[in-house]
Amino acid sequence: MSKEITARSQDYSKWYTDLVQKGGLADYSAVKGCMVIKPHGYAIWEAMRDILDRKFKDTGHQNAYFPLFIPKSFLSKEAAHVDGFAKECAVVTHHRLMNDPNGGGVVVDPTAKLEEELIVRPTSETIIWNTYRDWIQSYRDLPLLINQWANVVRWEMRTRLFLRTAEFLWQEGHTAHATAEEAIAETTQMLNVYGDFAEQYMAMPVIRGVKTANERFAGAIDTYCIEALMQDGKALQAGTSHFLGQNFAKAFDVQFSNKENKLEYVWATSWGVSTRLIGGLIMTHSDDQGLVLPPRIAPLQVVIVPIFKGEEQKALIDAKVNALVADLKRLGVSVKYDDSDNQRPGWKFAEYEMKGVPVRVAIGARDIENGVAEVARRDEKTKESMQLDGLADRIQALLEEIQQNLFNKAKAFRDSHITRVDTFEEFQKVLDEKTGFISAHWDGTTETEEKIKELTKATIRCIPLDNPQEEGKCVLTGKPSKERVLFARAY
Amino acid sequence: MSKEITARSQDYSKWYTDLVQKGGLADYSAVKGCMVIKPHGYAIWEAMRDILDRKFKDTGHQNAYFPLFIPKSFLSKEAAHVDGFAKECAVVTHHRLMNDPNGGGVVVDPTAKLEEELIVRPTSETIIWNTYRDWIQSYRDLPLLINQWANVVRWEMRTRLFLRTAEFLWQEGHTAHATAEEAIAETTQMLNVYGDFAEQYMAMPVIRGVKTANERFAGAIDTYCIEALMQDGKALQAGTSHFLGQNFAKAFDVQFSNKENKLEYVWATSWGVSTRLIGGLIMTHSDDQGLVLPPRIAPLQVVIVPIFKGEEQKALIDAKVNALVADLKRLGVSVKYDDSDNQRPGWKFAEYEMKGVPVRVAIGARDIENGVAEVARRDEKTKESMQLDGLADRIQALLEEIQQNLFNKAKAFRDSHITRVDTFEEFQKVLDEKTGFISAHWDGTTETEEKIKELTKATIRCIPLDNPQEEGKCVLTGKPSKERVLFARAY
Repeated sequence: MSKEITARSQDYSKWYTDLVQKGGLADYSAVKGCMVIKPHGYAIWEAMRDILDRKFKDTGHQNAYFPLFIPKSFLSKEAAHVDGFAKECAVVTHHRLMNDPNGGGVVVDPTAKLEEELIVRPTSETIIWNTYRDWIQSYRDLPLLINQWANVVRWEMRTRLFLRTAEFLWQEGHTAHATAEEAIAETTQMLNVYGDFAEQYMAMPVIRGVKTANERFAGAIDTYCIEALMQDGKALQAGTSHFLGQNFAKAFDVQFSNKENKLEYVWATSWGVSTRLIGGLIMTHSDDQGLVLPPRIAPLQVVIVPIFKGEEQKALIDAKVNALVADLKRLGVSVKYDDSDNQRPGWKFAEYEMKGVPVRVAIGARDIENGVAEVARRDEKTKESMQLDGLADRIQALLEEIQQNLFNKAKAFRDSHITRVDTFEEFQKVLDEKTGFISAHWDGTTETEEKIKELTKATIRCIPLDNPQEEGKCVLTGKPSKERVLFARAY
Repeated sequence: MSKEITARSQDYSKWYTDLVQKGGLADYSAVKGCMVIKPHGYAIWEAMRDILDRKFKDTGHQNAYFPLFIPKSFLSKEAAHVDGFAKECAVVTHHRLMNDPNGGGVVVDPTAKLEEELIVRPTSETIIWNTYRDWIQSYRDLPLLINQWANVVRWEMRTRLFLRTAEFLWQEGHTAHATAEEAIAETTQMLNVYGDFAEQYMAMPVIRGVKTANERFAGAIDTYCIEALMQDGKALQAGTSHFLGQNFAKAFDVQFSNKENKLEYVWATSWGVSTRLIGGLIMTHSDDQGLVLPPRIAPLQVVIVPIFKGEEQKALIDAKVNALVADLKRLGVSVKYDDSDNQRPGWKFAEYEMKGVPVRVAIGARDIENGVAEVARRDEKTKESMQLDGLADRIQALLEEIQQNLFNKAKAFRDSHITRVDTFEEFQKVLDEKTGFISAHWDGTTETEEKIKELTKATIRCIPLDNPQEEGKCVLTGKPSKERVLFARAY
């Protein structure tokens, strides 16, 4: 397969797919809408998972695991939830195959029909709250702070690798609290865990906000979100944290006796991020040569490539490199010495560039004589000759610099793509020509929100937290408005 | 819920279920045959997963992720595989629900029938080898060493928590090689990874062997296994590693051009262990008071409980304990200081005993005066007063001693339950009265193997590796035999 990828300027969408497939991240599978996550893509997911898991545990959460299947009737128990999730989903109706009596391979055994159909979980609120009824009796059992790492299925018709697939991997936190205040504090805390993770590790700036009623999670009182901006000016919802009120507790009859020994319904939150984050990571930093990975997420931070003729030169280089590798490992830097002889250095350079390794070190025989090495940074594609002496420390500092540089660049791009507009004509013009977030007044009605979506394909991404209050007129209807909201076309 | 568990001598099976449920490990769910893995059970699984994952990576494997669903037709492609796996499985036939036009909640939308049914993976050989066809062209692409952590579903009629559930968590390795020799070496290597993990971490002695034709994985040329012995004298298959020959490569047309540029079919292995291991862990070490966990697997190794009256005593204890906690952490020991005031020390002792924490330290005001603490070990239920000075080091050594003691005890039990028998009368008597493994001659036929199973419910667990060759007569038929094999009743 050719390693060349389409230029972003030519076809952004094709660039993305090329990069995911040729960069060894993921591919489509034989099952419509489902992806295969390839080793490099999975290694990025593992890095994200490990960091998030640590943050969840540090904030008092424990992991557990709930069934893949949800009885069909569970979906109907929470009125809003059923409308949101009992639509496109995978339905298990039978539990046995048999040999076709007419010799046509295996067929479904019609006698093995389930009494009640099972749904492959699109999200787990219902099965989990049905379980919590047994786990929660008293205020002493609260708060219950649980997270699950799992696969979920939503039968999407139009899929894109990582961004929208029928099956995806995610985590879903489900917590139970004695008071609304505690649950709201949890919702906010987890939104900030996601926001900090996106910015400090993925180097992806995000806007923290709350969704409009129309864009809320099915069954939530409030949906908080982090919204990122991709290089093509489209927004990406990167994570959500929901305050569910007592909706699921009421639907599944989960009550606790409070300190006064009176029964009350439990307050709930749920929050999740998914493999979709990998799509966001790619479209925040990468370029026409391939992936660009922030060092704190990169499965491999430094690759060292030797350039030599003959065993004698190789031995000299090996000695220096082995010391460098040891130094880097001591500093906690992940490093690979690629001295495999089945490919030339030029091929290796392109390969590691494609895979987004933040720092590449090349060392030749003459470099050894001069006590230097060539250090290339992936983000800026610049090279510099550096003294071997003390190189590990300099590389460690360089990794931090790259991390910060990626964030700064992405933030400058994002900030320059938040445009205040006050007329609908301007709204459409900015959306089509400049792209990005549009900060505009809105009259607060779902009707207007949907009309704007119909006319422009832009949705309200969020109402930013701590949004300045300001008198104005709705960009579409001219009705009075008290604050601006952020519109964008989105993935 | 009462924390009391049934005694093993009274009802071993009930003891097991009590322990799993009341020890906070797992419980049955609203979905028949599917379990909820509770936080303590999941923490044990995480500990196992992290150790195994490190071992897989150290032996050159990478993780990836393949779809949950398998097209029905894939199962038919490998002749033996279809018989083994296209039986009791979850079949997805539709992809949409709709509101019942007659007002009966949600129903399956009959217009959303899938063209081809999808099977929830019972194991992933077929979907993975269908993918490998695109990944493998040349000998340069080999070996391909991939592992997947995933959930799988086998529609079991009779389920037991951890041991046999419809959905379970596991890892499945799937590797591709240029030669049979390499594939066989991989199969053996992974068997030994499992065996070493079971013995060195789980403190669960295992017999490494090969299955008879009758007990082989569906589609394998050879199935290697590790077999453990539970306290009730029944065997447990704890892990398998399969040499698949070229069966799946031929079924899915996966060929590579060798160094002579000729096309050859690829050689395959697969290997897996699952949450079943947790059942094995429980039934190897635990007692009538609850779980007993080997320190190297225990999510929490040491718990410290203060015994005090008033704030002044508490402050004195806190100071000593904080220093001890810091020392233990520095040594890499996981430790919790449980100074919560909502339960009495006696309740805490019972709770941590139930949960299997290997070492419990109790410290009271008088202990502080005397510069000592009471250290209790979970395995032997003994207590000892130890000097606070240097206590962290002593605890670290004690954890190692407990680890070794648990293995030694389990091994002594296992070794004393391998009985050589030479007559069928003796076979039945030992099986019923002494239980355990029976080492007996067998004529090598599937017919005899099945006859013995029918008569005694014992199966051939394995032919041990490096089995001594010895002339003998089949314990049932009297026909000539060249070696003994291990029979047992099994989970």
